[in-house]
Amino acid sequence: MSKSRRSERMVVITRLLSQKPHTLFSLNFFSRMFNVAKSTISEDLNIMRETCEKWGIGELTTVPGAAGGVKFIPRLSREETEELVDFLQQELSREERILPGGYLYMADLIYNPQIVGKAGRLLATIFQDKKPDYIVTVETKGIPLALMTATAFNVPLVIIRANNKVTEGSAVSINYVSGSTKRIQSMSLARRALPPDSKVIIIDDFMKAGGTARGMQDLLQEFRAETLAIGVMVATAEPKDKLVSNYISILDLVSVDTDKKEVKIVPGKWYSQ
Amino acid sequence: MSKSRRSERMVVITRLLSQKPHTLFSLNFFSRMFNVAKSTISEDLNIMRETCEKWGIGELTTVPGAAGGVKFIPRLSREETEELVDFLQQELSREERILPGGYLYMADLIYNPQIVGKAGRLLATIFQDKKPDYIVTVETKGIPLALMTATAFNVPLVIIRANNKVTEGSAVSINYVSGSTKRIQSMSLARRALPPDSKVIIIDDFMKAGGTARGMQDLLQEFRAETLAIGVMVATAEPKDKLVSNYISILDLVSVDTDKKEVKIVPGKWYSQ
Repeated sequence: MSKSRRSERMVVITRLLSQKPHTLFSLNFFSRMFNVAKSTISEDLNIMRETCEKWGIGELTTVPGAAGGVKFIPRLSREETEELVDFLQQELSREERILPGGYLYMADLIYNPQIVGKAGRLLATIFQDKKPDYIVTVETKGIPLALMTATAFNVPLVIIRANNKVTEGSAVSINYVSGSTKRIQSMSLARRALPPDSKVIIIDDFMKAGGTARGMQDLLQEFRAETLAIGVMVATAEPKDKLVSNYISILDLVSVDTDKKEVKIVPGKWYSQ
Repeated sequence: MSKSRRSERMVVITRLLSQKPHTLFSLNFFSRMFNVAKSTISEDLNIMRETCEKWGIGELTTVPGAAGGVKFIPRLSREETEELVDFLQQELSREERILPGGYLYMADLIYNPQIVGKAGRLLATIFQDKKPDYIVTVETKGIPLALMTATAFNVPLVIIRANNKVTEGSAVSINYVSGSTKRIQSMSLARRALPPDSKVIIIDDFMKAGGTARGMQDLLQEFRAETLAIGVMVATAEPKDKLVSNYISILDLVSVDTDKKEVKIVPGKWYSQ
Protein backbone atom coordinates (compact mmCIF):
# COMPACT_ATOMS: atom_id res chain seq x y z
CA MET A 1 0.00 0.00 0.00
CA SER A 2 1.26 3.47 -0.81
CA LYS A 3 2.09 5.93 1.93
CA SER A 4 -0.79 7.94 3.26
CA ARG A 5 -1.22 11.64 3.82
CA ARG A 6 -1.42 13.03 7.32
CA SER A 7 -4.92 14.47 6.82
CA GLU A 8 -6.13 11.05 5.66
CA ARG A 9 -4.57 9.33 8.66
CA MET A 10 -6.19 11.85 11.00
CA VAL A 11 -9.65 10.92 9.69
CA VAL A 12 -9.07 7.18 10.01
CA ILE A 13 -7.40 7.35 13.44
CA THR A 14 -10.07 9.69 14.82
CA ARG A 15 -12.84 7.40 13.62
CA LEU A 16 -11.12 4.30 15.04
CA LEU A 17 -10.33 5.83 18.43
CA SER A 18 -13.88 7.23 18.69
CA GLN A 19 -15.35 3.81 18.05
CA LYS A 20 -12.98 2.00 20.39
CA PRO A 21 -12.45 4.26 23.39
CA HIS A 22 -10.42 3.01 26.37
CA THR A 23 -8.62 0.57 24.05
CA LEU A 24 -4.85 0.52 23.77
CA PHE A 25 -3.46 0.90 20.24
CA SER A 26 0.28 0.53 19.72
CA LEU A 27 2.30 2.81 17.46
CA ASN A 28 3.27 -0.32 15.54
CA PHE A 29 -0.38 -1.01 14.81
CA PHE A 30 -0.87 2.39 13.16
CA SER A 31 2.57 2.25 11.54
CA ARG A 32 1.67 -1.01 9.77
CA MET A 33 -1.86 0.17 9.02
CA PHE A 34 -0.64 3.24 7.13
CA ASN A 35 2.78 2.02 6.03
CA VAL A 36 4.63 4.95 7.60
CA ALA A 37 7.39 5.28 10.19
CA LYS A 38 6.55 5.14 13.89
CA SER A 39 8.00 8.64 14.27
CA THR A 40 5.41 9.92 11.78
CA ILE A 41 2.58 8.23 13.72
CA SER A 42 3.99 9.72 16.87
CA GLU A 43 3.69 13.21 15.34
CA ASP A 44 0.13 12.41 14.20
CA LEU A 45 -0.84 11.43 17.71
CA ASN A 46 0.72 14.55 19.18
CA ILE A 47 -1.44 16.72 16.95
CA MET A 48 -4.43 14.59 17.85
CA ARG A 49 -3.70 14.91 21.58
CA GLU A 50 -3.50 18.71 21.35
CA THR A 51 -6.65 18.88 19.24
CA CYS A 52 -8.66 16.68 21.60
CA GLU A 53 -7.59 18.85 24.52
CA LYS A 54 -8.18 22.16 22.74
CA TRP A 55 -11.66 21.20 21.56
CA GLY A 56 -12.69 19.32 24.72
CA ILE A 57 -13.27 16.12 22.75
CA GLY A 58 -11.52 13.90 25.24
CA GLU A 59 -8.14 12.76 26.37
CA LEU A 60 -5.49 10.86 24.43
CA THR A 61 -3.53 8.96 27.06
CA THR A 62 -0.07 7.65 26.31
CA VAL A 63 1.00 4.37 27.87
CA PRO A 64 4.82 4.25 27.72
CA GLY A 65 7.04 1.22 27.22
CA ALA A 66 7.28 -1.74 24.87
CA ALA A 67 3.65 -2.80 25.47
CA GLY A 68 2.57 0.82 25.31
CA GLY A 69 0.56 2.93 22.92
CA VAL A 70 -2.33 5.36 23.11
CA LYS A 71 -5.90 5.16 24.21
CA PHE A 72 -8.71 7.63 23.77
CA ILE A 73 -10.94 8.59 26.67
CA PRO A 74 -14.02 10.47 25.45
CA ARG A 75 -15.26 13.43 27.44
CA LEU A 76 -18.18 15.79 27.23
CA SER A 77 -16.75 19.30 27.12
CA ARG A 78 -17.93 21.96 29.58
CA GLU A 79 -19.72 23.71 26.70
CA GLU A 80 -21.54 20.56 25.57
CA THR A 81 -22.40 19.76 29.20
CA GLU A 82 -24.03 23.16 29.73
CA GLU A 83 -25.88 22.85 26.44
CA LEU A 84 -27.19 19.39 27.38
CA VAL A 85 -28.24 20.36 30.92
CA ASP A 86 -29.98 23.54 29.69
CA PHE A 87 -31.77 21.59 26.99
CA LEU A 88 -32.97 18.87 29.36
CA GLN A 89 -34.04 21.39 31.96
CA GLN A 90 -36.11 23.33 29.44
CA GLU A 91 -37.59 20.24 27.83
CA LEU A 92 -38.57 18.59 31.11
CA SER A 93 -40.18 21.81 32.38
CA ARG A 94 -42.74 21.81 29.56
CA GLU A 95 -46.23 21.41 30.97
CA GLU A 96 -47.26 18.97 28.22
CA ARG A 97 -44.99 16.44 29.89
CA ILE A 98 -47.05 16.30 33.09
CA LEU A 99 -48.94 13.02 33.32
CA PRO A 100 -51.70 12.00 35.76
CA GLY A 101 -50.15 11.19 39.13
CA GLY A 102 -47.47 13.85 38.76
CA TYR A 103 -45.26 11.76 36.49
CA LEU A 104 -43.25 13.35 33.70
CA TYR A 105 -43.24 11.95 30.17
CA MET A 106 -39.55 11.45 29.34
CA ALA A 107 -39.54 8.59 26.81
CA ASP A 108 -38.82 10.81 23.79
CA LEU A 109 -35.72 12.18 25.53
CA ILE A 110 -34.35 9.01 27.13
CA TYR A 111 -34.81 7.01 23.90
CA ASN A 112 -33.18 9.62 21.64
CA PRO A 113 -29.70 8.44 20.54
CA GLN A 114 -28.22 11.96 20.37
CA ILE A 115 -29.47 12.91 23.85
CA VAL A 116 -28.63 9.67 25.66
CA GLY A 117 -25.37 9.56 23.72
CA LYS A 118 -24.35 12.90 25.25
CA ALA A 119 -25.80 11.99 28.66
CA GLY A 120 -23.83 8.73 28.62
CA ARG A 121 -20.61 10.59 27.79
CA LEU A 122 -21.46 13.06 30.57
CA LEU A 123 -21.85 10.27 33.14
CA ALA A 124 -18.60 8.70 31.93
CA THR A 125 -16.95 12.13 32.34
CA ILE A 126 -18.36 12.60 35.86
CA PHE A 127 -17.22 9.06 36.78
CA GLN A 128 -13.91 9.36 34.93
CA ASP A 129 -11.85 8.19 37.91
CA LYS A 130 -13.84 4.97 38.24
CA LYS A 131 -12.75 1.85 36.40
CA PRO A 132 -15.94 -0.21 35.99
CA ASP A 133 -15.84 -3.69 34.47
CA TYR A 134 -19.56 -3.49 33.70
CA ILE A 135 -22.42 -1.02 33.55
CA VAL A 136 -25.56 -2.45 35.15
CA THR A 137 -29.17 -1.35 34.70
CA VAL A 138 -32.64 -2.83 35.22
CA GLU A 139 -35.14 -3.09 32.39
CA THR A 140 -36.56 -1.03 30.66
CA LYS A 141 -36.30 2.73 30.51
CA GLY A 142 -32.74 3.05 31.75
CA ILE A 143 -31.33 0.75 29.06
CA PRO A 144 -30.53 3.36 26.38
CA LEU A 145 -28.69 5.65 28.85
CA ALA A 146 -26.89 2.65 30.36
CA LEU A 147 -25.83 1.39 26.93
CA MET A 148 -24.45 4.80 25.99
CA THR A 149 -22.55 5.02 29.28
CA ALA A 150 -21.19 1.52 28.61
CA THR A 151 -20.21 2.69 25.10
CA ALA A 152 -18.26 5.65 26.51
CA PHE A 153 -16.45 3.37 28.99
CA ASN A 154 -16.26 0.59 26.36
CA VAL A 155 -17.36 -2.07 28.84
CA PRO A 156 -20.24 -4.56 28.54
CA LEU A 157 -23.76 -3.76 29.69
CA VAL A 158 -25.63 -6.05 32.06
CA ILE A 159 -29.43 -5.85 32.19
CA ILE A 160 -31.25 -7.05 35.29
CA ARG A 161 -34.67 -8.46 34.38
CA ALA A 162 -37.94 -7.89 36.22
CA ASN A 163 -38.61 -11.63 35.87
CA ASN A 164 -36.49 -14.66 35.21
CA LYS A 165 -36.49 -15.66 31.52
CA VAL A 166 -35.97 -19.07 29.94
CA THR A 167 -33.55 -17.56 27.44
CA GLU A 168 -31.04 -16.60 30.12
CA GLY A 169 -30.48 -19.86 32.00
CA SER A 170 -30.18 -20.19 35.77
CA ALA A 171 -30.56 -16.91 37.57
CA VAL A 172 -30.42 -15.31 40.99
CA SER A 173 -33.63 -13.55 42.02
CA ILE A 174 -34.37 -11.22 44.89
CA ASN A 175 -37.44 -9.47 46.20
CA TYR A 176 -37.23 -5.81 47.06
CA VAL A 177 -39.53 -3.09 48.27
CA SER A 178 -40.03 -0.23 45.85
CA GLY A 179 -39.15 2.81 47.95
CA SER A 180 -41.98 4.98 46.66
CA THR A 181 -44.88 2.58 46.11
CA LYS A 182 -43.90 0.25 49.01
CA ARG A 183 -44.86 -2.69 46.81
CA ILE A 184 -42.83 -5.87 46.83
CA GLN A 185 -41.25 -6.54 43.46
CA SER A 186 -38.67 -8.95 42.17
CA MET A 187 -35.64 -8.73 39.93
CA SER A 188 -33.40 -11.37 38.53
CA LEU A 189 -29.99 -11.72 36.94
CA ALA A 190 -28.62 -14.68 35.00
CA ARG A 191 -25.78 -16.47 36.79
CA ARG A 192 -23.49 -16.19 33.81
CA ALA A 193 -24.21 -12.50 33.19
CA LEU A 194 -21.65 -11.24 35.70
CA PRO A 195 -18.41 -12.88 36.88
CA PRO A 196 -17.77 -12.78 40.65
CA ASP A 197 -15.96 -9.75 42.13
CA SER A 198 -16.76 -7.42 39.24
CA LYS A 199 -16.68 -3.66 39.70
CA VAL A 200 -19.83 -2.01 38.37
CA ILE A 201 -21.57 1.32 37.90
CA ILE A 202 -25.38 1.28 38.15
CA ILE A 203 -27.22 3.49 35.64
CA ASP A 204 -30.96 4.21 35.53
CA ASP A 205 -33.32 6.82 34.14
CA PHE A 206 -35.10 7.84 37.31
CA MET A 207 -34.75 7.61 41.08
CA LYS A 208 -37.36 8.47 43.67
CA ALA A 209 -36.71 6.83 47.04
CA GLY A 210 -33.92 4.66 45.65
CA GLY A 211 -35.64 1.31 46.34
CA THR A 212 -34.85 -0.04 42.90
CA ALA A 213 -31.21 1.03 43.09
CA ARG A 214 -30.98 -0.53 46.55
CA GLY A 215 -32.52 -3.73 45.22
CA MET A 216 -29.96 -3.76 42.41
CA GLN A 217 -27.12 -3.32 44.89
CA ASP A 218 -28.49 -6.19 47.00
CA LEU A 219 -28.79 -8.43 43.95
CA LEU A 220 -25.27 -7.45 42.84
CA GLN A 221 -23.92 -8.44 46.24
CA GLU A 222 -25.08 -11.99 45.47
CA PHE A 223 -22.47 -11.83 42.69
CA ARG A 224 -19.91 -10.31 45.08
CA ALA A 225 -19.90 -7.26 42.80
CA GLU A 226 -18.69 -3.91 44.04
CA THR A 227 -20.89 -0.93 43.15
CA LEU A 228 -18.50 1.94 42.41
CA ALA A 229 -21.21 4.53 41.77
CA ILE A 230 -24.81 5.07 40.72
CA GLY A 231 -25.85 7.52 37.99
CA VAL A 232 -29.38 8.52 36.99
CA MET A 233 -30.85 10.98 34.52
CA VAL A 234 -33.38 12.44 37.00
CA ALA A 235 -33.73 12.05 40.77
CA THR A 236 -36.57 13.56 42.77
CA ALA A 237 -35.56 16.07 45.45
CA GLU A 238 -37.98 14.34 47.87
CA PRO A 239 -37.51 12.11 49.78
CA LYS A 240 -34.18 13.70 50.60
CA ASP A 241 -32.91 10.57 52.31
CA LYS A 242 -32.65 7.94 49.61
CA LEU A 243 -32.12 4.25 50.24
CA VAL A 244 -28.72 4.57 48.50
CA SER A 245 -26.13 7.25 49.07
CA ASN A 246 -23.43 7.16 46.40
CA TYR A 247 -25.51 8.45 43.47
CA ILE A 248 -25.21 11.28 40.97
CA SER A 249 -28.28 12.69 39.20
CA ILE A 250 -27.92 14.75 36.04
CA LEU A 251 -31.07 16.66 37.06
CA ASP A 252 -33.06 16.96 40.29
CA LEU A 253 -36.84 17.14 40.05
CA VAL A 254 -37.91 19.56 42.78
CA SER A 255 -41.68 19.57 42.21
CA VAL A 256 -44.48 18.83 39.77
CA ASP A 257 -47.60 20.91 40.37
CA THR A 258 -50.36 19.15 38.43
CA ASP A 259 -52.88 21.96 39.14
CA LYS A 260 -50.76 24.93 38.13
CA LYS A 261 -49.06 22.80 35.47
CA GLU A 262 -45.64 23.74 36.73
CA VAL A 263 -42.50 21.66 36.84
CA LYS A 264 -39.45 22.72 38.79
CA ILE A 265 -36.29 20.90 37.81
CA VAL A 266 -32.68 21.90 38.46
CA PRO A 267 -29.22 20.54 37.63
CA GLY A 268 -27.85 17.96 40.07
CA LYS A 269 -25.36 18.89 42.78
CA TRP A 270 -22.38 17.78 40.65
CA TYR A 271 -23.08 20.65 38.24
CA SER A 272 -21.85 23.54 40.37
CA GLN A 273 -18.70 21.74 41.42
CA MET B 1 -9.54 32.59 17.12
CA SER B 2 -6.41 31.88 15.16
CA LYS B 3 -6.50 29.88 11.97
CA SER B 4 -6.40 26.15 12.37
CA ARG B 5 -4.26 23.50 10.74
CA ARG B 6 -5.77 21.03 8.33
CA SER B 7 -4.84 18.00 10.44
CA GLU B 8 -6.55 19.60 13.43
CA ARG B 9 -9.68 20.34 11.42
CA MET B 10 -9.78 16.75 10.16
CA VAL B 11 -9.92 15.43 13.72
CA VAL B 12 -12.68 17.81 14.79
CA ILE B 13 -14.78 17.38 11.64
CA THR B 14 -14.45 13.58 11.73
CA ARG B 15 -15.52 13.46 15.36
CA LEU B 16 -18.47 15.79 14.72
CA LEU B 17 -19.72 13.98 11.61
CA SER B 18 -19.35 10.60 13.35
CA GLN B 19 -21.46 11.77 16.26
CA LYS B 20 -24.09 13.43 14.09
CA PRO B 21 -24.56 11.21 11.04
CA HIS B 22 -27.29 12.02 8.51
CA THR B 23 -27.15 15.67 9.61
CA LEU B 24 -26.54 18.46 7.12
CA PHE B 25 -23.61 20.77 7.93
CA SER B 26 -23.05 23.82 5.73
CA LEU B 27 -19.62 24.95 4.55
CA ASN B 28 -20.35 28.23 6.33
CA PHE B 29 -20.74 26.38 9.60
CA PHE B 30 -17.28 24.87 9.37
CA SER B 31 -15.80 28.05 7.91
CA ARG B 32 -16.93 30.04 10.97
CA MET B 33 -16.02 27.24 13.37
CA PHE B 34 -12.40 27.20 12.19
CA ASN B 35 -12.05 30.76 10.93
CA VAL B 36 -10.89 29.70 7.46
CA ALA B 37 -12.17 30.30 3.93
CA LYS B 38 -14.98 28.15 2.52
CA SER B 39 -12.64 27.02 -0.24
CA THR B 40 -10.29 25.59 2.40
CA ILE B 41 -13.17 23.73 4.05
CA SER B 42 -14.19 22.46 0.65
CA GLU B 43 -10.71 20.97 0.17
CA ASP B 44 -10.88 19.44 3.68
CA LEU B 45 -14.17 17.78 2.84
CA ASN B 46 -12.83 16.44 -0.46
CA ILE B 47 -9.99 14.70 1.37
CA MET B 48 -12.47 13.40 3.90
CA ARG B 49 -14.79 12.10 1.19
CA GLU B 50 -11.97 10.19 -0.51
CA THR B 51 -10.73 8.83 2.82
CA CYS B 52 -14.18 7.63 3.89
CA GLU B 53 -14.58 5.86 0.56
CA LYS B 54 -11.08 4.36 0.51
CA TRP B 55 -11.34 2.98 4.05
CA GLY B 56 -15.01 1.96 3.84
CA ILE B 57 -15.92 4.23 6.76
CA GLY B 58 -19.02 5.61 5.12
CA GLU B 59 -20.22 8.11 2.59
CA LEU B 60 -19.85 11.88 2.67
CA THR B 61 -22.79 13.16 0.65
CA THR B 62 -22.77 16.66 -0.80
CA VAL B 63 -26.04 18.55 -0.99
CA PRO B 64 -25.57 21.35 -3.55
CA GLY B 65 -27.06 24.84 -3.50
CA ALA B 66 -27.43 27.71 -1.04
CA ALA B 67 -29.04 25.51 1.62
CA GLY B 68 -26.52 22.78 0.89
CA GLY B 69 -23.61 21.24 2.69
CA VAL B 70 -22.39 17.79 3.57
CA LYS B 71 -23.73 14.91 5.57
CA PHE B 72 -22.03 11.76 6.71
CA ILE B 73 -23.66 8.38 6.24
CA PRO B 74 -21.86 5.70 8.27
CA ARG B 75 -21.37 2.28 6.73
CA LEU B 76 -19.91 -0.99 7.86
CA SER B 77 -17.19 -1.93 5.36
CA ARG B 78 -17.22 -5.33 3.66
CA GLU B 79 -14.18 -6.30 5.75
CA GLU B 80 -15.81 -5.29 9.05
CA THR B 81 -19.01 -7.04 7.99
CA GLU B 82 -17.21 -10.33 7.34
CA GLU B 83 -15.33 -10.00 10.62
CA LEU B 84 -18.58 -9.38 12.54
CA VAL B 85 -20.51 -12.22 10.88
CA ASP B 86 -17.63 -14.68 11.39
CA PHE B 87 -17.30 -13.65 15.01
CA LEU B 88 -21.02 -13.99 15.74
CA GLN B 89 -21.24 -17.31 13.93
CA GLN B 90 -18.34 -18.74 15.94
CA GLU B 91 -19.54 -17.33 19.24
CA LEU B 92 -23.11 -18.53 18.82
CA SER B 93 -21.95 -22.04 17.85
CA ARG B 94 -20.28 -22.58 21.23
CA GLU B 95 -21.97 -25.42 23.07
CA GLU B 96 -21.85 -23.57 26.41
CA ARG B 97 -24.54 -21.28 24.99
CA ILE B 98 -27.13 -24.04 24.74
CA LEU B 99 -29.81 -23.62 27.38
CA PRO B 100 -32.56 -26.04 28.44
CA GLY B 101 -35.33 -25.99 25.82
CA GLY B 102 -32.89 -25.46 22.96
CA TYR B 103 -32.48 -21.73 23.59
CA LEU B 104 -29.16 -19.99 23.03
CA TYR B 105 -27.65 -17.64 25.58
CA MET B 106 -26.98 -14.42 23.67
CA ALA B 107 -27.17 -11.69 26.33
CA ASP B 108 -23.42 -11.10 26.53
CA LEU B 109 -23.32 -10.47 22.77
CA ILE B 110 -26.49 -8.42 22.32
CA TYR B 111 -25.67 -6.20 25.31
CA ASN B 112 -22.06 -5.54 24.27
CA PRO B 113 -21.69 -1.95 22.95
CA GLN B 114 -18.94 -2.85 20.45
CA ILE B 115 -20.88 -5.77 18.98
CA VAL B 116 -24.32 -4.15 18.79
CA GLY B 117 -22.63 -0.96 17.62
CA LYS B 118 -21.27 -2.79 14.59
CA ALA B 119 -24.47 -4.80 14.11
CA GLY B 120 -26.48 -1.58 14.19
CA ARG B 121 -24.23 -0.01 11.55
CA LEU B 122 -24.55 -3.20 9.52
CA LEU B 123 -28.36 -3.03 9.60
CA ALA B 124 -28.21 0.66 8.66
CA THR B 125 -25.92 -0.31 5.77
CA ILE B 126 -28.25 -3.11 4.60
CA PHE B 127 -31.23 -0.71 4.84
CA GLN B 128 -29.31 2.24 3.39
CA ASP B 129 -31.99 3.04 0.81
CA LYS B 130 -34.71 3.31 3.46
CA LYS B 131 -35.46 6.63 5.07
CA PRO B 132 -36.98 5.75 8.45
CA ASP B 133 -38.34 8.45 10.76
CA TYR B 134 -38.09 6.07 13.72
CA ILE B 135 -36.60 2.74 14.74
CA VAL B 136 -39.11 0.64 16.70
CA THR B 137 -38.47 -2.30 19.02
CA VAL B 138 -40.27 -4.10 21.83
CA GLU B 139 -38.75 -4.49 25.26
CA THR B 140 -36.27 -5.87 26.35
CA LYS B 141 -33.52 -7.73 24.58
CA GLY B 142 -33.73 -5.98 21.23
CA ILE B 143 -33.28 -2.52 22.74
CA PRO B 144 -29.45 -2.25 22.51
CA LEU B 145 -29.39 -3.33 18.84
CA ALA B 146 -32.34 -1.05 18.05
CA LEU B 147 -30.67 1.91 19.77
CA MET B 148 -27.46 1.37 17.82
CA THR B 149 -29.40 1.12 14.55
CA ALA B 150 -31.19 4.34 15.51
CA THR B 151 -27.80 5.91 16.26
CA ALA B 152 -26.49 4.99 12.80
CA PHE B 153 -29.62 6.45 11.14
CA ASN B 154 -29.67 9.30 13.69
CA VAL B 155 -33.41 8.94 14.26
CA PRO B 156 -35.28 8.46 17.55
CA LEU B 157 -35.96 5.05 19.04
CA VAL B 158 -39.46 3.99 20.04
CA ILE B 159 -39.86 1.16 22.57
CA ILE B 160 -43.10 -0.81 22.66
CA ARG B 161 -43.85 -2.00 26.19
CA ALA B 162 -45.16 -5.40 27.22
CA ASN B 163 -47.58 -3.63 29.55
CA ASN B 164 -48.98 -0.13 29.75
CA LYS B 165 -47.07 2.04 32.23
CA VAL B 166 -48.29 5.02 34.25
CA THR B 167 -45.19 6.96 33.29
CA GLU B 168 -46.10 7.01 29.60
CA GLY B 169 -49.63 8.41 29.61
CA SER B 170 -52.49 7.14 27.43
CA ALA B 171 -51.51 4.23 25.26
CA VAL B 172 -52.77 1.92 22.55
CA SER B 173 -52.66 -1.75 23.46
CA ILE B 174 -53.16 -4.85 21.37
CA ASN B 175 -53.23 -8.57 22.03
CA TYR B 176 -51.26 -10.86 19.79
CA VAL B 177 -50.50 -14.54 19.55
CA SER B 178 -46.86 -15.43 19.97
CA GLY B 179 -46.11 -17.46 16.83
CA SER B 180 -44.03 -20.11 18.57
CA THR B 181 -45.64 -20.55 21.99
CA LYS B 182 -49.22 -19.80 20.74
CA ARG B 183 -49.81 -17.85 23.93
CA ILE B 184 -51.82 -14.64 23.90
CA GLN B 185 -49.70 -11.69 24.96
CA SER B 186 -50.18 -7.94 24.91
CA MET B 187 -48.07 -4.98 23.92
CA SER B 188 -48.66 -1.30 24.29
CA LEU B 189 -47.37 1.99 22.91
CA ALA B 190 -47.91 5.47 24.33
CA ARG B 191 -50.09 7.69 22.11
CA ARG B 192 -47.51 10.43 22.05
CA ALA B 193 -44.59 8.12 21.27
CA LEU B 194 -45.18 8.09 17.51
CA PRO B 195 -46.75 10.77 15.30
CA PRO B 196 -49.27 9.50 12.71
CA ASP B 197 -47.99 8.41 9.27
CA SER B 198 -44.42 7.81 10.40
CA LYS B 199 -42.10 5.53 8.44
CA VAL B 200 -40.40 3.00 10.67
CA ILE B 201 -37.94 0.10 10.69
CA ILE B 202 -38.59 -2.64 13.25
CA ILE B 203 -35.50 -4.08 14.98
CA ASP B 204 -35.38 -7.05 17.36
CA ASP B 205 -32.84 -9.54 18.66
CA PHE B 206 -34.59 -12.77 17.70
CA MET B 207 -37.36 -14.05 15.44
CA LYS B 208 -38.89 -17.49 15.47
CA ALA B 209 -42.34 -17.60 13.86
CA GLY B 210 -42.56 -13.82 13.62
CA GLY B 211 -45.57 -13.44 15.92
CA THR B 212 -44.02 -10.61 17.89
CA ALA B 213 -42.96 -8.75 14.74
CA ARG B 214 -46.46 -9.25 13.33
CA GLY B 215 -47.95 -7.92 16.57
CA MET B 216 -45.68 -4.88 16.34
CA GLN B 217 -46.77 -4.24 12.77
CA ASP B 218 -50.43 -4.51 13.82
CA LEU B 219 -49.89 -2.10 16.72
CA LEU B 220 -47.99 0.28 14.43
CA GLN B 221 -50.92 0.29 12.03
CA GLU B 222 -52.99 1.83 14.82
CA PHE B 223 -50.61 4.78 14.48
CA ARG B 224 -50.93 4.66 10.66
CA ALA B 225 -47.18 3.95 10.57
CA GLU B 226 -45.58 2.36 7.55
CA THR B 227 -43.13 -0.47 8.29
CA LEU B 228 -40.32 -0.08 5.74
CA ALA B 229 -38.38 -3.15 6.88
CA ILE B 230 -37.68 -5.52 9.75
CA GLY B 231 -34.18 -6.42 10.92
CA VAL B 232 -33.20 -9.01 13.52
CA MET B 233 -29.92 -10.34 14.87
CA VAL B 234 -30.95 -14.02 14.62
CA ALA B 235 -33.92 -15.70 12.94
CA THR B 236 -34.63 -19.43 13.16
CA ALA B 237 -34.64 -21.31 9.87
CA GLU B 238 -37.84 -23.08 11.00
CA PRO B 239 -40.69 -22.35 10.57
CA LYS B 240 -39.76 -21.27 7.08
CA ASP B 241 -43.00 -19.35 6.60
CA LYS B 242 -42.88 -16.52 9.08
CA LEU B 243 -45.86 -14.35 9.97
CA VAL B 244 -44.00 -11.39 8.41
CA SER B 245 -42.22 -11.33 5.08
CA ASN B 246 -40.06 -8.22 4.72
CA TYR B 247 -37.36 -9.11 7.23
CA ILE B 248 -33.58 -9.40 7.17
CA SER B 249 -31.72 -11.57 9.69
CA ILE B 250 -28.00 -11.09 10.27
CA LEU B 251 -27.78 -14.81 11.10
CA ASP B 252 -30.07 -17.80 10.56
CA LEU B 253 -30.23 -20.44 13.29
CA VAL B 254 -30.60 -23.75 11.47
CA SER B 255 -30.64 -26.14 14.42
CA VAL B 256 -29.78 -26.61 18.08
CA ASP B 257 -29.12 -30.21 19.04
CA THR B 258 -29.31 -30.31 22.84
CA ASP B 259 -28.15 -33.96 22.98
CA LYS B 260 -25.12 -33.72 20.75
CA LYS B 261 -24.51 -30.16 21.97
CA GLU B 262 -24.33 -28.86 18.44
CA VAL B 263 -25.49 -25.53 17.08
CA LYS B 264 -25.77 -24.85 13.38
CA ILE B 265 -25.96 -21.17 12.50
CA VAL B 266 -25.30 -19.50 9.15
CA PRO B 267 -25.23 -15.94 7.78
CA GLY B 268 -28.60 -14.61 6.59
CA LYS B 269 -29.57 -14.60 2.91
CA TRP B 270 -28.49 -10.96 2.47
CA TYR B 271 -24.86 -11.99 3.05
CA SER B 272 -24.20 -13.70 -0.27
CA GLN B 273 -25.81 -10.92 -2.26
